[in-house]
Amino acid sequence: MNIQQLLGIELPIIQAPMAGVQDHRLAIAVSNAGGLGSLPCAMLSPENLSQALRVIQESTDRPFNVNFFCHHVPAPDHSREALWRKTLTPYYEIFGIDSETIPTGPGRQPFSREIVDILEPFRPPVVSFHFGLPEPALLDQVKSWGSKILASATTVEEAIWLERNGADAVIAQGVEAGGHRGMFLTEDPTTQMGTFSLLPQIIDAISLPTIAAGGIASSEGVTAMLQLGAAGAQIGTAYMLCPEATTSRIHRQALRSSTARHTALTNVFSGRPARGIVNRIMREIGPFCDTAPPFPMAVSAMAPLRAAAEKQGSGDFSPLWAGQNTSGCREISAAEITLNLAGLPLSG
Amino acid sequence: MNIQQLLGIELPIIQAPMAGVQDHRLAIAVSNAGGLGSLPCAMLSPENLSQALRVIQESTDRPFNVNFFCHHVPAPDHSREALWRKTLTPYYEIFGIDSETIPTGPGRQPFSREIVDILEPFRPPVVSFHFGLPEPALLDQVKSWGSKILASATTVEEAIWLERNGADAVIAQGVEAGGHRGMFLTEDPTTQMGTFSLLPQIIDAISLPTIAAGGIASSEGVTAMLQLGAAGAQIGTAYMLCPEATTSRIHRQALRSSTARHTALTNVFSGRPARGIVNRIMREIGPFCDTAPPFPMAVSAMAPLRAAAEKQGSGDFSPLWAGQNTSGCREISAAEITLNLAGLPLSG
Repeated sequence: MNIQQLLGIELPIIQAPMAGVQDHRLAIAVSNAGGLGSLPCAMLSPENLSQALRVIQESTDRPFNVNFFCHHVPAPDHSREALWRKTLTPYYEIFGIDSETIPTGPGRQPFSREIVDILEPFRPPVVSFHFGLPEPALLDQVKSWGSKILASATTVEEAIWLERNGADAVIAQGVEAGGHRGMFLTEDPTTQMGTFSLLPQIIDAISLPTIAAGGIASSEGVTAMLQLGAAGAQIGTAYMLCPEATTSRIHRQALRSSTARHTALTNVFSGRPARGIVNRIMREIGPFCDTAPPFPMAVSAMAPLRAAAEKQGSGDFSPLWAGQNTSGCREISAAEITLNLAGLPLSG
Repeated sequence: MNIQQLLGIELPIIQAPMAGVQDHRLAIAVSNAGGLGSLPCAMLSPENLSQALRVIQESTDRPFNVNFFCHHVPAPDHSREALWRKTLTPYYEIFGIDSETIPTGPGRQPFSREIVDILEPFRPPVVSFHFGLPEPALLDQVKSWGSKILASATTVEEAIWLERNGADAVIAQGVEAGGHRGMFLTEDPTTQMGTFSLLPQIIDAISLPTIAAGGIASSEGVTAMLQLGAAGAQIGTAYMLCPEATTSRIHRQALRSSTARHTALTNVFSGRPARGIVNRIMREIGPFCDTAPPFPMAVSAMAPLRAAAEKQGSGDFSPLWAGQNTSGCREISAAEITLNLAGLPLSG
């Protein structure tokens, strides 16, 4: 079964949810073009989530996807946090930041009962999860509305786990993909495979439709993945220069420059491995830093550095998320990108 | 131009040269089946190289490839070597190995004037290089015989360099590939991209035919890469269980087991990053070990551990080279693998 059949969409294209660089506008544009638009929800307050869902339902009658994180929030660990701030102290000094004034806290909320209650009246056609799946009672409730469940697997073992635990389709997230690795059964970065290796092995191991993600940037790339047995393709990076994305000016500049050719997995922005364009802080304390606290606890202490540097026009401390293949990034509408990826001419 | 036109072969399939697990027999079988068989030559003595070339020319009238390394042999560094042996001392003790008796030395010879003289009477149709290209005078001489030159690129920058320096086609070696990374302009493992990201970016950057390598294990995989613009596909791992390969019993067992699903890049066997199935020594001192001396100097000190462990039936200290996608490994003839990869039925 392909994703057009499973999700009721026209094209085999899912726009990857990308927290921090997009809101409902990108999702609406992609859904209206015949793909599956996605809203990243992990950083939205309850009010903003409701509001975004209302706008999406008013703006499209096509299926759309809401994406959530399923991490476990670690208990506060003051000594760990102190160590992390000590690592960042030389940078606080550059910007004259008083580290005593920086709030602590998780910064990213996992899927919860409260979110289920917000979603219920909207019955979103598709709900996708990163870092595993929510607890069974919550998942069952979401499924009872008829929502289709997608979730990311970065290893064959994770794909098998997702199939056993209620996903309707699995996203094979190859190591090329930008942003956070969805890994949840392992913390070992060496387990992460290229899309071209991961996809066929997951297809062999499970009977659910498997969606390819990571490194796809053109209609040839989409066709190649379908050829390899994918039920569809999920693409993020190619949408980041669209006018409908909220990608910052600094982030857009980096994506357009040749520095975008060098990305790396890093834990310095959030505590979890995520792929971004290599910048100063990744180079100097990373890309993997032992003192970074577990996800999402690393975020708070980095935030004021990012803000201060961006105010000066610098992306030295910003998570410049991007996949390994930025060749699909173009400053054209999300509808145009979607149709291009599907190998279709622009209609009308 | 595809590789059939460039190299005068029937099928878009190159058998990747794999030092340590194959000799002329695999190369002959693949060339006779219509692909390009490859002989890994970096570990052959001058006599053995001549002998293998004679046997190949007697056994096939189709094009074949001889592969060489182009590394710079580092000057002996006794303090570095002592540090490396100190790292391995606990393991020497397990097997009762006297580290004083272990010879030092490079173990792998780079391409040289002597090799050019050996090759000249054979005028091999294709010569491929890993770790860059030989010096211009040697390369020009090889090209003067009409030999076509292939070389591996692991980054866009390396592909551009190879085009400028005389390669006839570039092998885009994605990070999924087994064995040694061909990297030569960078030592930074974060620059290494998945095949699906690397291939289109190299195709965009150069005008030479570009061959896809890394993670390809089926005719669908080959077709997908051709779809993405590859001039052909180079495949190694899928041939490792063939009767014509010399893969050890221990290595074959690992490839057939689910442990093959977890490979990693490691420098502990040779001093250069190479992908193999994760085993004890990689887990305990690696996968990257700071005390490993530069390629190929790490080989000598590891060799007696490998020999002693293999004698006991253990692959704990062996380089179990494999790509990230072992799903194409089958115990069938190399001709059958070649035709399968090309999507053709077995003839006759």
